[in-house]
Amino acid sequence: MKYNIALLAGDGIGPEVINEAVKVSDAVAKKFGHEITWKPALTGAAAIDAVGVPYPDETHEICLAADAVLFGAIGHPKYDNDPLAPVRPEQGLLLMRKKLGLFANVRPTFTFPSLLDKSPLKRERIEGTDLVFLRELTGGIYFGEKGRRDGGDTAFDNCVYTRAEVQRLAKKGFELAMTRSKKLCCVDKANVMETSRLWRETVQAMEKDYPEVTVSYEFVDAVAMRLVQWPNTYDVLITENLFGDILTDEASVISGSMGLMPSASMGDKVSLFEPIHGSYPQATGLNIANPMATVLSAAMMFENFGLMEEGAAMRNVVNKALEAGVVTEDLADGGKAYGTKEVGDWLVANL
Amino acid sequence: MKYNIALLAGDGIGPEVINEAVKVSDAVAKKFGHEITWKPALTGAAAIDAVGVPYPDETHEICLAADAVLFGAIGHPKYDNDPLAPVRPEQGLLLMRKKLGLFANVRPTFTFPSLLDKSPLKRERIEGTDLVFLRELTGGIYFGEKGRRDGGDTAFDNCVYTRAEVQRLAKKGFELAMTRSKKLCCVDKANVMETSRLWRETVQAMEKDYPEVTVSYEFVDAVAMRLVQWPNTYDVLITENLFGDILTDEASVISGSMGLMPSASMGDKVSLFEPIHGSYPQATGLNIANPMATVLSAAMMFENFGLMEEGAAMRNVVNKALEAGVVTEDLADGGKAYGTKEVGDWLVANL
Ligand SMILES: CC(C)[C@H](C(=O)O)[C@@H](O)C(=O)O
Ligand SMILES: CC(C)[C@H](C(=O)O)[C@@H](O)C(=O)O
Repeated sequence: MKYNIALLAGDGIGPEVINEAVKVSDAVAKKFGHEITWKPALTGAAAIDAVGVPYPDETHEICLAADAVLFGAIGHPKYDNDPLAPVRPEQGLLLMRKKLGLFANVRPTFTFPSLLDKSPLKRERIEGTDLVFLRELTGGIYFGEKGRRDGGDTAFDNCVYTRAEVQRLAKKGFELAMTRSKKLCCVDKANVMETSRLWRETVQAMEKDYPEVTVSYEFVDAVAMRLVQWPNTYDVLITENLFGDILTDEASVISGSMGLMPSASMGDKVSLFEPIHGSYPQATGLNIANPMATVLSAAMMFENFGLMEEGAAMRNVVNKALEAGVVTEDLADGGKAYGTKEVGDWLVANL
Repeated sequence: MKYNIALLAGDGIGPEVINEAVKVSDAVAKKFGHEITWKPALTGAAAIDAVGVPYPDETHEICLAADAVLFGAIGHPKYDNDPLAPVRPEQGLLLMRKKLGLFANVRPTFTFPSLLDKSPLKRERIEGTDLVFLRELTGGIYFGEKGRRDGGDTAFDNCVYTRAEVQRLAKKGFELAMTRSKKLCCVDKANVMETSRLWRETVQAMEKDYPEVTVSYEFVDAVAMRLVQWPNTYDVLITENLFGDILTDEASVISGSMGLMPSASMGDKVSLFEPIHGSYPQATGLNIANPMATVLSAAMMFENFGLMEEGAAMRNVVNKALEAGVVTEDLADGGKAYGTKEVGDWLVANL
C-alpha cells in the first residue's frame, strides 16, 4: 500500500524524535512492502517564526490531503513563558484540532515490566496497569464562548456539549471497550454540571446497543483519586475535554515512563499521532531525547490503517530495546545511555 | 471564652465521628477554661428525610448565628446513586457554601511519619509532603448559569469569575504563604481559559503587596502530574473551584491517610470545619470510622478562633495516639483495631 503522511515535527526535540520514527516507519514499510511519502509541514514556534502563525493554512492543507499526520511536539520558551501573550504555539494546536475535526484523543497508559520501578507508585499499585482514556478534544470549555465583561473585571468561559458530540466520542469508547475487557468508565461531574448530566444520560442511552459492555459512572474527583490508588482497576475511560486534559496527564506519570507514551487524535477525515511528552526545549539538538513514544505513536498509526502486524512489529522491537537496555538517558538509570539516533538505528536493525 | 458551635453531623458515619470530636473539643475547652455550646442542626439525607430539603432554612439560621460550624459528612446511597435525581444531598452542600459565603476551602495534605507506608507513593516521593490547597468554593462553573437548549440536545455550564472573587481568595493564599515557607503556586489553565487569565493577571498584580512571597504559575494539568511525582515540592496552592475539587481529592490520597485529613471552609461571617472523607454509609453504626480527621478539623476551628495552644493540644494527642497504635481499623494494618468511641476516649484521657 501507499501512504501519504503529513509530518509535523514542531519545536524543541520534535524534529529529532520524528526523525527516528520516520526511520523506523520506513523500515517497517519496506519490510511489509508499503510505500510512505512524507510531507513535512510547519507548526508551533517554528511556524510562528517562519510565517507568523502557529498553524498555517498551508500546513492545514497538507494535513487534510494526507492519510494521517505524525506530530512531534510544540512549544518554545520564547513564546511559552507568558500565556497572556497574543500569539502562542498552543493556539496552533487548538486550531489544528478544531479544523481537522480531531474529536477523540486516545491516550493509553500502560506499563513495561522492566520499567515498573520508574513509577512514583509502589509496585503493587502500578503493576498490570493498562488503561486508555478517550478524551473529547474539540468541544467543551476549550471552544465555548469566552470573554470579559464589566470593563475586564468579570471573565467567563462557557462549556457547551451537544448530544451528537457525546455520542460520537462515546461510540468510540464502546467500540474500544469491545476490543478489550469490555469495561467502560464514563467520567463526569454530573452532580454539579449540566453538560455532565447530558454526557451521562447520553451514555446511559447507548448502553443497550452494547449489551456486553459494563459501564460505570464516576465523578472526575473520584477518578483523580483512584488513578493514584488503583490505576490497574481501570480499562477504557471516556471523558470531556478539560477533565481529559487533567486526568490523562495525571495518568501519564503514574507509569513512570512518560517518554514511552504514545497518543492518537482521531477525526472523521484524518487522524493524528503524537508522543504525549512536550518539546523539552532544554534538550534540543543534544541527541538525548527518547524517540520511543514517537515510534509507538507511529505504531498506532499503522494499526489505524489496519496494519496490525506492522504495528506489532514496532511495539515488539521497542520492547526488545527496553529489555536489552538500549535506552536514552531518561531510562538509563545509571547504566549506559544511548543517543536518540542510536536508539533509532538499533530499532531499525532489530525489526 | 464562650463559643456557640453549629453541629451538622449529617449522614452515614457523620454522627459517630462528630460525637468523638465533640468529646475531645469539650475536654480541651474544659482544660483551657472555655465553654462550648453545641447547636445540632439537620443536613444532607437526614434533612431530606425529615423536612424534604438537604439544607433547611432553620439549619442555615443556626449556622449564621454560630461562631463556627462543625460538619460531619453527607451523602446516602438512597439519594446518591443517581446524580440525575431531582433532590440530592450535595445540593445542600452547594447551597450551604453559597448562602454562608464559604469562599475559601482550606485543604492541607500532610504526612505522619508512622503512616508513610500507607501512601500509594514510594516513600522518597511522599516523605516531607506538607502542602495546603486553597480552593475557591462559591464561584466558577459550580454556580454559573447552566441549562439546556435545542430541546435538551445541547447543554451548557458557564464558568464565571470576578476580579474581586479572585482577590479575596488570593489574599488568603498570600497570607497563608507568609505564615509558611512563603511559596505560593497559582494553578490555572491560562493557556485556554479566559477566567484563568483573569486569575493569573489578578494574582500577578497582587505580588507587589507581598514582596517576600515567591509566586509560581502552573497549569492544572501540570499540577495533576507533579502532585503524584513530587508532592513535597509544593507548599501553598490557590485555585478555582473545579480545579480545586479535582486536585484536592487527588492530593488527599497521596498521603495514604485520608481518614486523618481535616479541612476548613472560610467565610466572611462564619467558617466551617469538616473531615474530607465522605459519609461511608457501609460503616454506619459499626463503631469503626476513624474520628481523627474530625478531631483535627475541630483543631483547625480552635486555631481559627486564635486558640493556638488548644489546637496544638489536639494535634499532639492525635499524634500520640498514632504513635501508640491507638487507631481504627483503616490504620490498624493487621494490628489491634480500636473502635471509633475508644479512640475518642483515649484522646480525651491523654490530652
Ligand atoms: C497546550 C494545551 C492547550 C493542551 C490542552 O490543554 O489540550 C495540552 O495540555 C494537551 O493536553 O494537549
Ligand atoms: C459533592 C460535590 C458537589 C462536592 C464538590 O464537588 O464540591 C465534593 O466533591 C467536594 O469536593 O466537596
